[in-house]
Amino acid sequence: MKIIGPFTQVVTLAQLPLRGSLADEQLEILENYSILEDEGVIVDIALHQQLLSDYPDAELVEISGDAIAIPGIVDCHTHICFGGNRANDFAMRNAGKSYLEIAEAGGGIWSSVQHTRNADENELLASLLTRIHKLEQLGNTTIEIKSGYGLNVDAELKMLRVIQKAQQFCKATLVPTCLSAHLKPKDFEGSSEAYLQYILTEILPIVQAEKLSNRVDIFIEKSAFLPDESKVFLEKAKAMGFTLTVHADQFTAGSSRIAVEVGAVSADHLEATSEEDIAYLAQSNTVAVALPGASLGLGEPFTPARKILDNNGILAIASDWNPGSAPMGNLICQASILATYQKLSSAEVWAGLTYRAAHALQLSDRGRLQKGMKADFLVYDTNNFQNILYQQGEMIPSAVYISGEKI
Amino acid sequence: MKIIGPFTQVVTLAQLPLRGSLADEQLEILENYSILEDEGVIVDIALHQQLLSDYPDAELVEISGDAIAIPGIVDCHTHICFGGNRANDFAMRNAGKSYLEIAEAGGGIWSSVQHTRNADENELLASLLTRIHKLEQLGNTTIEIKSGYGLNVDAELKMLRVIQKAQQFCKATLVPTCLSAHLKPKDFEGSSEAYLQYILTEILPIVQAEKLSNRVDIFIEKSAFLPDESKVFLEKAKAMGFTLTVHADQFTAGSSRIAVEVGAVSADHLEATSEEDIAYLAQSNTVAVALPGASLGLGEPFTPARKILDNNGILAIASDWNPGSAPMGNLICQASILATYQKLSSAEVWAGLTYRAAHALQLSDRGRLQKGMKADFLVYDTNNFQNILYQQGEMIPSAVYISGEKI
Repeated sequence: MKIIGPFTQVVTLAQLPLRGSLADEQLEILENYSILEDEGVIVDIALHQQLLSDYPDAELVEISGDAIAIPGIVDCHTHICFGGNRANDFAMRNAGKSYLEIAEAGGGIWSSVQHTRNADENELLASLLTRIHKLEQLGNTTIEIKSGYGLNVDAELKMLRVIQKAQQFCKATLVPTCLSAHLKPKDFEGSSEAYLQYILTEILPIVQAEKLSNRVDIFIEKSAFLPDESKVFLEKAKAMGFTLTVHADQFTAGSSRIAVEVGAVSADHLEATSEEDIAYLAQSNTVAVALPGASLGLGEPFTPARKILDNNGILAIASDWNPGSAPMGNLICQASILATYQKLSSAEVWAGLTYRAAHALQLSDRGRLQKGMKADFLVYDTNNFQNILYQQGEMIPSAVYISGEKI
Repeated sequence: MKIIGPFTQVVTLAQLPLRGSLADEQLEILENYSILEDEGVIVDIALHQQLLSDYPDAELVEISGDAIAIPGIVDCHTHICFGGNRANDFAMRNAGKSYLEIAEAGGGIWSSVQHTRNADENELLASLLTRIHKLEQLGNTTIEIKSGYGLNVDAELKMLRVIQKAQQFCKATLVPTCLSAHLKPKDFEGSSEAYLQYILTEILPIVQAEKLSNRVDIFIEKSAFLPDESKVFLEKAKAMGFTLTVHADQFTAGSSRIAVEVGAVSADHLEATSEEDIAYLAQSNTVAVALPGASLGLGEPFTPARKILDNNGILAIASDWNPGSAPMGNLICQASILATYQKLSSAEVWAGLTYRAAHALQLSDRGRLQKGMKADFLVYDTNNFQNILYQQGEMIPSAVYISGEKI
């Protein structure tokens, strides 16, 4: 049992609603409070002196100087398990080269597939852990990670086993997702429907048997899978017992509607969602996940986060860290820029990075600082939590606590 | 005399033109070369083994593993000397509050003026040095710094003296600029023309006498100074011997034309420049300075960098780090995002961060790695310089050399 504090401000995010817009005035900000944790869980949050006198036997982890405590970030959409590097693609795309020119120069997503297939498990694990540790240092205490650069049974299972193994070497909670339906691989002989059927019969049963993931994702887009075949695939995966999530409306509107219809926990991207579909999504229980890193990596418009909130939707914000379209990995930077372009309050940003993102991952034990929640929180050396987003990703936590332990 | 190397790649930026578009294929990239420096200047760049045999008495600073050498960044537009903090303004603006609401809550630029006026020289120096040291760590080896939060003779001179004093405590070259014409202060009794006259008669003569700056800047904008009075002011400052630079076309088109007409060394911002004025500016000797940090801080469009280059203009890229509209300070992050939205090659970005920015500051001794140039360069632990922009500000130099010394 430990008392950690006192903090100049504890930003609890407690008592805020799951849906809709939020004003900063709604935030609970406790001054000179400390956190009492036991076995990784928050037992109490109270005035420092009160905790000292109520729990005289607790270990004291004293925080000196100005410090903020705020819930750990839940990054609910990443693709950080991959081989290779696409720096040259990035430079070519910025310089105005077409997808075809990039592919001809050996780049594009297919190069990530080849490098991932060719990497052995140890290589893949080492590079994945490097990225996880960076995310942890930046304050990401729960990290979703997708497969999807294997695109055949062996390589997809290799990715998911590597993600499972990574959990042994890091403190952050990893949430694996099977994205074998990222695109139809060049070397698959047959239609995209046949490839989706291959996933259902060859990959998902093993994923389930080995407990590698209980989540299935698909990229619905002209360049990947079409709406009708995707919906059939999602329904079959759901019937197998998988939780669903969808890459929706990134360049073409329409697929977020499918995500809602099949009861997906989240519809992610949404840069191209129509006004009508925003309203439809916002009224559902499907979390809308904004991925500003993809906008900043491709030079595209942002997810219409403001409209989603104004329609009373559930908005989460994730990094989408991947080697192609979102190579940055600094979610606070991305979320702060999203806030500026989409006119979001800090409360809306922090809700989207924490308990609303946790909801997209069906994790109800984190994302707020209150009794009974997992003791995942960030410490920043400042006297005003607004400084964190203000510095647009340049302020790094001075300490990251996961399950009550400083990492 | 030191041999520093060998480097996997030395990106020299040598022999590239001052004006216009650039392809990455034009970059000189030397493999396994080292840098020979003496008394802060590059004496030779040659194959590592060649330098070892040609200069057997030189000290060897051996670089092991993959490493890139690339010229130090010249940040030709900042406002990093200020008191106070505007995190709450930033949050209010993101949340959709108006300028008036922010001002009523005690925010806005006037709060920076009040905090800067109230700060004593030591406070101001300490906070300035913190920002300078951060910029140095990020690779900024030359930093322009403007006054403009004093707005009366005492406080403007205090700022410029603090900037002058800061030079004693840092390795980066500081270039001070007098921006007393940032806006007419609330407490000045008289017209904006009268305030500009006050600058000319009360502030600039002392600036000149104390050698505090040889550069004069003005913010031409509806909310600051109007075109006609600004042009008169600039011509008078020029007649006094000052070099001119202008905050132009940030929200309203037209003032970049004045910058060209008065022979300013640079016209900075340009987010609102018309097509016609881009062509006019691009044909001049006035450097166009893009400030992507201001776009990212305000949620505004970017400077039309692509069009400026396509019109054969001279494009530099600077951070605009300031407490209001551009609070980030990570110029590589900003420049990389600009590249993505404006479709710039890496060569165009690096030219804009180095020798083209140095040209805006009339410094011809830096910004390229070649014989006779100042030995200001960055070392990144990677085997491909494209990784630097690819990581969008997340890759930090492993070493920063200024005048041949590692800081």
